[in-house]
Parts: sequence; structure tokens; C-alpha cells
Amino acid sequence: MKKILDTCNKFFGLIIVINIFHQIVSSAGYFALEIPILQFLYWISIGIFGIEFILRVFVERRISVLLSLDALVLINQVLFSVYDLRILRLFRLFDIFSQSRFLLPTNTLINTIIKQRNALMGSQIMVLSILLVVSTFIYFLESSVQPDVFGSIPSTMWWGIATLTTVGYGDVVPMTDLGKLLASLTMLVGIGMFALPAAILASAYYEEIQKKNFLVSFEAIASVPLFQELPIGAVGKINEKLEVVLVSEHETIFSKGDEADSMFIIEYGKVKVEIEKPVYLVAGDYFGEMGLLGNAPRNATITAADDTKLLELTKSDLAELSEEHPGLFKELELSASARSSD
Amino acid sequence: MKKILDTCNKFFGLIIVINIFHQIVSSAGYFALEIPILQFLYWISIGIFGIEFILRVFVERRISVLLSLDALVLINQVLFSVYDLRILRLFRLFDIFSQSRFLLPTNTLINTIIKQRNALMGSQIMVLSILLVVSTFIYFLESSVQPDVFGSIPSTMWWGIATLTTVGYGDVVPMTDLGKLLASLTMLVGIGMFALPAAILASAYYEEIQKKNFLVSFEAIASVPLFQELPIGAVGKINEKLEVVLVSEHETIFSKGDEADSMFIIEYGKVKVEIEKPVYLVAGDYFGEMGLLGNAPRNATITAADDTKLLELTKSDLAELSEEHPGLFKELELSASARSSD
Amino acid sequence: MKKILDTCNKFFGLIIVINIFHQIVSSAGYFALEIPILQFLYWISIGIFGIEFILRVFVERRISVLLSLDALVLINQVLFSVYDLRILRLFRLFDIFSQSRFLLPTNTLINTIIKQRNALMGSQIMVLSILLVVSTFIYFLESSVQPDVFGSIPSTMWWGIATLTTVGYGDVVPMTDLGKLLASLTMLVGIGMFALPAAILASAYYEEIQKKNFLVSFEAIASVPLFQELPIGAVGKINEKLEVVLVSEHETIFSKGDEADSMFIIEYGKVKVEIEKPVYLVAGDYFGEMGLLGNAPRNATITAADDTKLLELTKSDLAELSEEHPGLFKELELSASARSSD
Amino acid sequence: MKKILDTCNKFFGLIIVINIFHQIVSSAGYFALEIPILQFLYWISIGIFGIEFILRVFVERRISVLLSLDALVLINQVLFSVYDLRILRLFRLFDIFSQSRFLLPTNTLINTIIKQRNALMGSQIMVLSILLVVSTFIYFLESSVQPDVFGSIPSTMWWGIATLTTVGYGDVVPMTDLGKLLASLTMLVGIGMFALPAAILASAYYEEIQKKNFLVSFEAIASVPLFQELPIGAVGKINEKLEVVLVSEHETIFSKGDEADSMFIIEYGKVKVEIEKPVYLVAGDYFGEMGLLGNAPRNATITAADDTKLLELTKSDLAELSEEHPGLFKELELSASARSSD
Repeated sequence: MKKILDTCNKFFGLIIVINIFHQIVSSAGYFALEIPILQFLYWISIGIFGIEFILRVFVERRISVLLSLDALVLINQVLFSVYDLRILRLFRLFDIFSQSRFLLPTNTLINTIIKQRNALMGSQIMVLSILLVVSTFIYFLESSVQPDVFGSIPSTMWWGIATLTTVGYGDVVPMTDLGKLLASLTMLVGIGMFALPAAILASAYYEEIQKKNFLVSFEAIASVPLFQELPIGAVGKINEKLEVVLVSEHETIFSKGDEADSMFIIEYGKVKVEIEKPVYLVAGDYFGEMGLLGNAPRNATITAADDTKLLELTKSDLAELSEEHPGLFKELELSASARSSD
Repeated sequence: MKKILDTCNKFFGLIIVINIFHQIVSSAGYFALEIPILQFLYWISIGIFGIEFILRVFVERRISVLLSLDALVLINQVLFSVYDLRILRLFRLFDIFSQSRFLLPTNTLINTIIKQRNALMGSQIMVLSILLVVSTFIYFLESSVQPDVFGSIPSTMWWGIATLTTVGYGDVVPMTDLGKLLASLTMLVGIGMFALPAAILASAYYEEIQKKNFLVSFEAIASVPLFQELPIGAVGKINEKLEVVLVSEHETIFSKGDEADSMFIIEYGKVKVEIEKPVYLVAGDYFGEMGLLGNAPRNATITAADDTKLLELTKSDLAELSEEHPGLFKELELSASARSSD
Repeated sequence: MKKILDTCNKFFGLIIVINIFHQIVSSAGYFALEIPILQFLYWISIGIFGIEFILRVFVERRISVLLSLDALVLINQVLFSVYDLRILRLFRLFDIFSQSRFLLPTNTLINTIIKQRNALMGSQIMVLSILLVVSTFIYFLESSVQPDVFGSIPSTMWWGIATLTTVGYGDVVPMTDLGKLLASLTMLVGIGMFALPAAILASAYYEEIQKKNFLVSFEAIASVPLFQELPIGAVGKINEKLEVVLVSEHETIFSKGDEADSMFIIEYGKVKVEIEKPVYLVAGDYFGEMGLLGNAPRNATITAADDTKLLELTKSDLAELSEEHPGLFKELELSASARSSD
Repeated sequence: MKKILDTCNKFFGLIIVINIFHQIVSSAGYFALEIPILQFLYWISIGIFGIEFILRVFVERRISVLLSLDALVLINQVLFSVYDLRILRLFRLFDIFSQSRFLLPTNTLINTIIKQRNALMGSQIMVLSILLVVSTFIYFLESSVQPDVFGSIPSTMWWGIATLTTVGYGDVVPMTDLGKLLASLTMLVGIGMFALPAAILASAYYEEIQKKNFLVSFEAIASVPLFQELPIGAVGKINEKLEVVLVSEHETIFSKGDEADSMFIIEYGKVKVEIEKPVYLVAGDYFGEMGLLGNAPRNATITAADDTKLLELTKSDLAELSEEHPGLFKELELSASARSSD
């Protein structure tokens, strides 16, 4: 069931990507509208999303943000066709692929923004206050000279934002000496404020990323008991072969009966072997090696008992390593036979 | 009395917000001046602020910065009406709501700026020196070709600031080859300097915010009235004993009947004592000390009325502190007996 | 002797400031040239600097960078008078006041730049490479369409620098679709590189500043034995009164016979009391309190035996503190009498 | 042999630099094409690079990225001569001089980018999403008013990138009130995102540089040939024993006749063994092991031929390691006897 849903989701993801692509190129009138297949897809996807929408409303029985966005897009497409809002489905794309390794850092970033909202808000209030005061004073100084662009405080705020963010279009520039003096002081003092959110976010995001760490560090390899006897010279080779897998609490790593094509080493966290009397494995332990050696399917379901970072080693990579360093292989066989005889 | 003042302050805050809004929209001539109620409010608030100003002068008997700003705004409104300076009351807004949770990060930011003024000054002096030298040399190179915009060093400084801050309006651009070469070098070398204050501020502000959330700072201890009479030498010891507890709005801190094994001091935020007539305690207040002294269970439920940071002191740590500093114990007993006899 | 030199230096500093001010306003033709006194000063200072230059050449007998700059300025003023190079004396200003508290952070910044030159260089090489490649390719794409501004690689480098530094004057903008695509990619990828030096510098400078710390932290006060018995409530007041004094190794803090108008507490570092058998005082110790109590002049020279951070407390501030907290005064008297009886 | 290759490489590096210089100045038509020697060099270097290309294809027998770039440049020069692609050889320059001290920080930076690719990718996906949504909405608002520059989503993306990166050319600026409002919000919110990569990179790069200077990283140990055969489990132990020694160029590490109490491994840099025919040792080499084994004093003076980072291993620590891992000891003895018998 879960697998079907997953496939469905990926299918919807694909349709959304095509739709957004279609929206962009059709706006440019490049060639898209003329290609009948894209135009055909446009109508097909209205149908698909329409049916999906109705199904979800009946199943979920509550209106989520993403669902309302979908409603907005559909209603607009069917009834008005004035603005093409398909781009809004981008958010659903994030939702669909939120668990993919590719989007993990982006999700970390979004979480960081939410966590740091107070610090960000603090600097933004400062920023808006500076903007208000500066815009008001430049209005006093410039409005008589350039009434068309500095003629009201909302107008001068357009100048203020473009200046304080250092965008500086140059479409609106103070001309009086006093105006230039005020603008200079504003740039010198105010710009620091506007760069604050980026810097705060960067510090927090960097910390968060380091905590999760999508890298296999040499320290991590050196702390895995299984590798202790390999020579130092092999660290680089192992490093290339290990793939990082991050799993959240309660997530299933593999299920009983699944094909066994890789083994896992726990860098940090905890996993639960779902057998009669559940067993917990912790940092430094490895699992999934039994099936690998004997070509049997997984003989137990294993779930994460905590947010866990795993290092995955595929069958073929393991075979290659074992060939070069027979000692590694022997320990695995011993441990596997010991476990299976339990 | 304090409550009346608080309500008064919030009322003035509201009037200021309306006035600033009125100033902005009226400058744009959108609709504001035509709406009689806003115009009416304009005159009313002159009256209100006038009376308030006179009252405060008589009560406070000294001229603070905010008071002089108020005087400036009022005098200008009544006598000249040339420039509308109401925007300056923004600073009073910050003062009025400085204790609200919403402005806490902004105040932290302002304090950070004050603390880091030396580091910021250090980079600003560097910045101004670079600006002076670069502006002088570009003046030599460009003044003959573009005498109208590069005709004097103050003029070239306008170009210099717009360039070094990366605003780059483009209203003034060097045209000679040598001028462009100098400008290129300036951009490559000088921009780092101009981005320094933002980066410094960000590091310091981020640290400060993190500290505010998870540490007991010496500043926090020094601001707790309960500890005022303890000797400075005890700060380190108290610091070790206090545990930070962060509670979200509506969260229950303890319930009536719970075992009483610690007391709490509020660093910031607000808690609600859930008795017949609920009582609110704010920053600097402490609670939970009664059960501690008499071994009785908690006699009231206490919930957070805001996101609150508490400093927890366990029974045994309190006993230890009281033993060394009997004065501390006495005040607690007095306050506890006073409360319980209410 | 040292005092005379010091006064001389300050006098030259003043002349330089006036000269630079004169150069700037005279370039603008505001009013300066018309004011005979400034014009008079111009000729006077040529004389003064000329004599000083000759004296220094004879005394120092080697050509330093600052001396050659001075020569350059003088020769130009006397012989050619084409370019007004007085602005170059700005560097001498830094040299003269390098020990003043005001310029300390700026000097720290300069030292940080020198220390981090490798890291900065590393990113600048990257930056120049990106600039070269991007400028070459945009030259291919745009030179036929806009031969006047994209007509050669040096020309496109002007665009490249203005873009990659985010200055973006807008005087040169790609027009072809491919050119815009390349420019877009350049902005997305390359800008990170150009912001690197600022960020690196900021991290390093911030660290350096924190190490020196121009602040009196609560932690520092709480660790001074002298204040241990004061109540916590007094920390804020003491904090306001203490002034930070940073002295380098071998620097003299005060000399025997000087007027005694303040006492010092050592936050970190080491000082040497220059008596027959030199005594060293370290962090937490205080000195200079004897003269304060008895109105006698300093009875020993004290020099820094290491880079040292002192907290200075003036006579009047000490008197005020002693009045409120008599205990503080008593300990000082005891210690002073103990020392003097040695 | 290695020496010849090294000289060859440097010679090619020189030719590349001349070629790139020639390309830049010839594009500007300054004087280069007219100088027959540069033109002559142009043809000569085609010949040299052609021969070298053929040789390398035969020797290496696989097509690397750099080799294909070379092919691209050569084919283009000989057959089409439309675009001058010599600038692409810049990458080979990086490759040739990758081990020079001058390019070390740049290589560290490149490695940092590779390491942090996930974090950077995470923010870039965010950035592109914001760009897409903002560009679409500004297209709705501005396309009817300025159809020539806001007429399609790809067009508005040009505006979007120039704005969000704060380049702000000003060639395309929203004109409607709603468009300006959207642009203002975009600047306030979105700019933080675009500054993220720079800030992340800076933090990571700065850390990496600091590590390179003052720590023994696991990567460094893994790259020392001497340790290759030790088991991974020993890395931690070796790490504790190695002491970092930074020596500047020309500094003496030890002198002939000194007591021999430690050996050194070169992490980066170069040292000179001051014997009759001086020998140079480079990264990965070790020295000073002879005296250790035989209790003899140092038999040669060794100085740094470049800024060098050494890892020092004391006699007792080496003894301890050798005991646990006899293999290590054997190699040292062999190498020592081999050297002394020279």
C-alpha cells in the first residue's frame, strides 16, 4: 500500500515538474504552446489533479494548506484562466520529496528558519524602523526637487529598500547635497542591519548541518569496530564506498522479507531489531550483513529507535573490500554465524 | 498604580502607531487627509501629547532624550507645521514595548550593538580611510573627463560610498581606463571592509541570542532582586546551581498538590498563579518557595502566560546557599509567610 | 623627552587633519581657498613638514615607507603642484595615534588582515580565475552585439567585476539571451566567492576582538577578590565606573613620582613593580591604591611584564564606592598599610 | 625522472600564462598582435601543446577532463579559429601548481566546496524556488505595462536574479505599485537566502584553514606513507602522540650534533638536508629517525626550504608505537640503514 502511494506521489511530482516547465516556456511563447503534446498534457493534468483533489478531500476530510493551494490552482484554471497559478504547486513538490536525500538540506534550512524566527524577527523590526525613519527624512529633503519619484513616503520607501538592501537599481537617486549626505550615512550605518538575517541564518544553518553531517568523516570510520584492523591506507577507499543514510525515529530501515543488498553501520543513534524480544543496536554496531553473505532475504524488520545516521555498504562494494582485506570478511562471517545460531 | 501606567502606555503606543500610519498615507495623498476621522485624530493627538508632555515635565523634572523628541514634534506641529516629525515617536514606541516578548530580540540586538561598539568603530575607521583615499585618487583620474559628477572630492565620495557598499546606483561611473582600473581594485579590496560590521554584528547577536535562551548569564543573576544582597563572590556558585527551564505559553510549570522540590525565578516572560483571582508574576519575581520551606505540597497550579525563561533552584541547593548566606533565607521566609497569610 | 615627542606627534597629527580637511574642501571650491587662514596654513605646513622631514632624515638615517610618502607629498607640493597628495599622510595619522584607545580596534583589524593573508589570498585567486573565465566567455557572446562595451576582454572584465561584487552599476549589461544566461549563472555561483574575504575577515577579527575584549564583563568583576564582598546589586554600578586599559609588554603604566589619581586591578596579564627586588602582580591583584588613600605621589614605577588588561578606578569613583560600601574601603586601607610597612 | 617531469610542468605553466596573457591583450587589440614575438609564440605553443597532447594520449591511455579541455582548445585553434578557448587552460594551471604553497589555500577552498556541496545545494534549491515563484508573480503584475522586459517568465527571471543577488543593474525595474511592493518584499525576505552560500562557505573554509594550521587531522595521518600499514584503530592513538610544529622558510629545524630525541613527518612544505649535495624532502617524507634508533646525535642540519608543517613524534612515543605495531619499526630501520649506507 505504502509503495503504491509512494509511486503515485512520484508520478504527481513528475506531472508538476512538467506543468511548471510548460508554464514557464509557454509564457515565453517559445515553442511550447505549439507542441500539441504539452497542450494535451495541460488538459490531462487538470483532469488528473481534479480527480485527485476530490479523492483527497473525501479521504483526508480537512483542508490543509497544500490542498487549498491545489484548489486555488484548479478553480483558476477551470473558471477564470486569467493567471496561470501552476507555479504554486512547487510547494507540493517540496512536500512530496521532503524525505529524499536530495531535499534533506533544504528541509534542514526551512527548519532552521522556523527555529530562528525570533532572532530574524528581531533584526527585521530594526530594519523596518530604520527604513521608515530614513524614508521620511529623504522625503523632506528630496520631494521638492524630484516630486515624481520622491513625492510621498511610500515612494521614498521604494528607494530606501533598494538602497538598504544594496540592490541599488539607480532608477531613483537623491540629487540634493543634503539628500546625498543622508543617503551616504544610511548606507554606512544601515546596511549592516539588512545583512544580519543572512548572517544569522548562515550561522544557525551551518551549525545544524554540521550536527546532521552528511559526510562520512575519517573520525567516523576510525571509530567503527568492524574496520579497526584494516590498514590506514584503506580509509580513503572505504570513505568513497560508504553512503550516508539518515533515518528519523520510528522510520523503517528495511522489512523482513526484503531483498538483502547492503549492510549498515550505525554512526550515531539507535535501531531496534523487531524480533520477539526486540534487540537494540547502537553506535558502532552493524546489521544486515547476514543476508549479504548467504543471499537470503532480510530475516527481521529493523526500525530506527532514534534519529540515526547509518553508513550503508552495498553488496558489491563489500565484496570488493573483502577481497582486498580478507580479515574483514572473516569477522563478518563469524558474527553472522554467531547471530543466526542465536 | 503600575497597571494604570501600563494601560496608559499601551494607549499612547496605539496613538503613535495611528499617527505614523497617518503621516505615511497623508504624504502619499492617498485618502487619509480626506478621511475626517484621521484628521480629527491628528488634532486630538496633538492635544493628548501636549497635556502628557506638560504632566511628564512636572513629574519627572528632567529632560530625557525621548522627552526632547516629543517636544520637538509638538513644537513643530503647533508652530511651524513645515516638516511632519511624528515619525520620531517611533523611538518612544520601542521604549513603551521594550519589555514585550515581541521586541525582546530587537532589544538584544540594540544591546549587542552597544557592546560591540569598539569592534564596529574599528572597522568603520578603516572604511572611512579607504573611502577618503580612493575618492581622492578617482578625483585625480576622472575630474577632467566628468567635471560635473567627479568635480570635487565630496562628489567622488558619493561615488565611493555607493561603490564600496555595493549599492552601485550607476548614476556616477568612472569612464577613463585608469579610473575603471582603480574602481576595480577598490571593489576587489575594499568591499570586504564594508561588509565587516554586518558580519561582526551577526556573530555577536547570534551568540547573545543563544545565550539568552540556554544559559544563565551573570547579568541575569545580577538583575534578580532576591540575590541583590548576596556578595559578588557568590555569583559563580549561584550560576552553577541554577538550571534553565524554558516553558512555552500555556504550559503548566507545576500543578497544585505536586511535591515541592524546587523554586523558580523568572528571567523573562510571565507566569499565571491559577488561584481564584489569578495573579501574574513577571521578570525578577520568584515563586514555589513556600512548599520548599514548609515541606508542604504545591498549593497552586502555575502556568506560563507567555514564552518564559525560568531559573530553577532545587531544595538542596537552596538549603546550601541559605546556610552560607543566612540573609537570603530570611527574605524568602518573610515573603513566604506574607504570601500564605494573604 | 618622551613627553615632548608625544606632544610633537599630536601637533603633527592635528596639522595633518587640517591639511586633509583643507584638501577636501578646496577641491570642492566651497569656501576654503577664500579663507586666507587655511591658505596660510597650507604654506606654513609645507614649511613645517619640510623642516621635520630634513630633521628625521638626519636622525633616523634610513628611509621608511612613511618617510618616502612624506617626501612624495612635499616634492609634489613644492615642484609640480599638479596633484594634491596630502591625503597620503592619512597613513602617518594611523602611525601617530596607533597606541590610542580609539584606534586600537582598527589596529587589531590590520593585524588580523596580515595574519589571515593566506586564507584571503586563497579566495582571491579563486575570484580572479572565475573573473577571467566568465569575462572571456561573455566576450564571445556579447562582443558582436555591443562592441563598444563588450569589445575586448579587459572591457568585459569591468562588467565582470561590477557584477561579481554585486555593485551592478548597470552601465554595461548583457543583451543577448545567451549572455544573460551566462550572467545569471555567474551571479548565482560566483557571488559566494566574492563575499568570502569579508566573511573570513569578520570571523578572524571577531575572534581577535573577543580575545582582547574591550568590555568589562560581569565575569571579570566577579573574579576580582577586592570586590568579592560587595553585594551583587552593586555590579552594575562598578561596571560603569571601571575603565579598560590595555597595555603592551614593557609599556610603563605609571612612573615613580607621578600624581596618583587612580588605582588599577589586573584582569589578565602581569605587571612588574620596579623596586629593588622587583615584584610581579598577576590577575586579580590590584595596585596604585596607596597614593590614592594618602594623597602621596606614586612611590614606584610599574611596567607591564606581559600584554595586560587593566581595570582602572579613578580616585573620585573609588571614594563614591567606598562611601556606599565601607567594607571595600577598609580592605584597601589594610592592604595599603601592610604594603607600605614592608 | 620526477625532476624532469616537474620542470616540464613548470615550463608548460609558463607557456599557459603567456598564452592567456596574449589572449586577453590581443582581444583588446592593444599591441599584442603587432608584436611578432607573441604571435610567433602563439603558433609555437600550438605545436608544443599538440605534441604534448599526442604523447600524453599514448602514455596515459585514458581521457581525463583536463586532456579533453586541451583537445577542445587545440581542435578549435587548428580547425575553426572562431573562439579563442585558451583561457580554459587555466584549470591546468591549477593542476600543475596544486602542490605549491601559493595555491594551498585555494585548493583548501575547492575541497571545502566539495565537502559542503550538500549544504550549498540545500540553499541553492531554496534560492531557485524563491526565484521561480517571485519571477512568475512579477510577470503577472508587470507584463502588461512593460511587455518588452517583463514579457515572459524567463525575462522576469533575469530581473529576479539581478535583484535577489543584489546586483541590481537597473536595466529592468518594476513600475507598477503592486510590482514595487512585491519587489520590496522579495528584497527583504529573499536576499538572506542568496547570501547563505557565501556565509556557509566562509565558515567552513575558515574552520578548514584553522585546522590545517594547528591540528593533526585524520586525513593528514592517512596520507603519511609511513603509517599506511597500521590498522585504522591506531589512528586515534597516533593522533594523540603527534605534535604540530610550524616552521617558516629558512628556519633551522635541528642542527648537526644536536641530541636526537624525536623524528619528523612533513605534512606540507619542503625541508633541506644540509649535506654536501643538499637533498630536499617533501610532503609525506620523514626524517630524523636515524638518531632515534641508534642513540647517535643528529648527523646533518635540516632547515625549512618553505613554510612547512611538521608532525613531531618523540622517542618514547615512537618506542611505544613500535612495540604495538612491529611493522612500523621495521620500515624505519630499513630506511635508516638505507640512508646511512648512502
